[in-house]
Amino acid sequence: MELQVLVLRPIFFFFFFVFLTILQQSSSARVLTITKPDRHDYAASARWLVSQNSWGVLSTLSVDHKGAPFGNVVSFSDGLPEKGNGIPYFYLTTLDPTARNALKDQRASLAISESPLGTCTRDPMNPTCSKLTLTGKLLILEGGSEEAEVAKKALFTKHPEMMDWPKDHDFRFFKLEIIDIFLINWYGGAKPITVDEYLHAKSIKLASFL
Amino acid sequence: MELQVLVLRPIFFFFFFVFLTILQQSSSARVLTITKPDRHDYAASARWLVSQNSWGVLSTLSVDHKGAPFGNVVSFSDGLPEKGNGIPYFYLTTLDPTARNALKDQRASLAISESPLGTCTRDPMNPTCSKLTLTGKLLILEGGSEEAEVAKKALFTKHPEMMDWPKDHDFRFFKLEIIDIFLINWYGGAKPITVDEYLHAKSIKLASFL
Repeated sequence: MELQVLVLRPIFFFFFFVFLTILQQSSSARVLTITKPDRHDYAASARWLVSQNSWGVLSTLSVDHKGAPFGNVVSFSDGLPEKGNGIPYFYLTTLDPTARNALKDQRASLAISESPLGTCTRDPMNPTCSKLTLTGKLLILEGGSEEAEVAKKALFTKHPEMMDWPKDHDFRFFKLEIIDIFLINWYGGAKPITVDEYLHAKSIKLASFL
Repeated sequence: MELQVLVLRPIFFFFFFVFLTILQQSSSARVLTITKPDRHDYAASARWLVSQNSWGVLSTLSVDHKGAPFGNVVSFSDGLPEKGNGIPYFYLTTLDPTARNALKDQRASLAISESPLGTCTRDPMNPTCSKLTLTGKLLILEGGSEEAEVAKKALFTKHPEMMDWPKDHDFRFFKLEIIDIFLINWYGGAKPITVDEYLHAKSIKLASFL
């Protein structure tokens, strides 16, 4: 009995510790602040994808490749939790092709997936794993303007690392002015959703960060 | 003592079971078959990203939006483990804009990130979190051709769900014929890497699936 207690107790505590560590790691991997909206609410579904994702692929028309479509992995933010406005803001350097392309031709699109959120149970291309493409104009925001401040706050709170990015790399704030929305969040093809419905979606209740 | 054994033992087994379950779930979320290559080996780094990722954003020139760049979340595969050839294959339906766009104008790019692989420790846009854009031509593969069979095998083994996708949705096999490679896998901007180096990279040793 003495032996069992001596042996079992440390083993028990070891596994309990490991269990807690794993639990902590798996929960810190992604902090989902709200649950997935009802799939019939297209505007809320689209806003949820934008609000929850931290990166996507921003496509522009390549200057280097004579107008070919050039997708680039970028971080973005549409605002602070509970205050996101649905407009994706970016912090891009003109050392990178995407910003240079946009300064030549503003046409662009941002594609994001539900896959990184960890809520998909099927293949990333299965229609039940939501995907969203926002097509519009990638516009540079005037330094010091009110909107540049909104973008800065949105980006630096979601991507605090950006505050330390090199000052001499000509990083500038951009926004995607949305013209068209392509949303798949269930079977049956792209869902009907207007930019107005998207931008004025009922404020999706975002719980404060856990 | 009796009581301790009676109480401790079930608790111990409970946590042991939970521990095993979590461990299994976290490892099944992503099966990394090889570790990240040396960052100085650009070709191996690019091939690793293609081999390990299961989805990316495929950009084409939109027919519906007068040539605007249209990024779309898609699943892809470059081949069986240990036999990947670096060429991304896709299973696209003409019900979706991407395939229709490509049939009008073949210019396309595939953008993928290291972020979904779980090996990034910094922001998805930090240069240490690798990203890759393959620019080229999105070509439809002739039904029944040798290359269509290669694509089919590559896709259906990595995305078994595809085998059950609706037969009446006109899914077809496509490949990206790579013309240019844009790789960021460390500080200092895009890395010099040719298509030839990429396609003929030393066979990256892929351990069999865990």
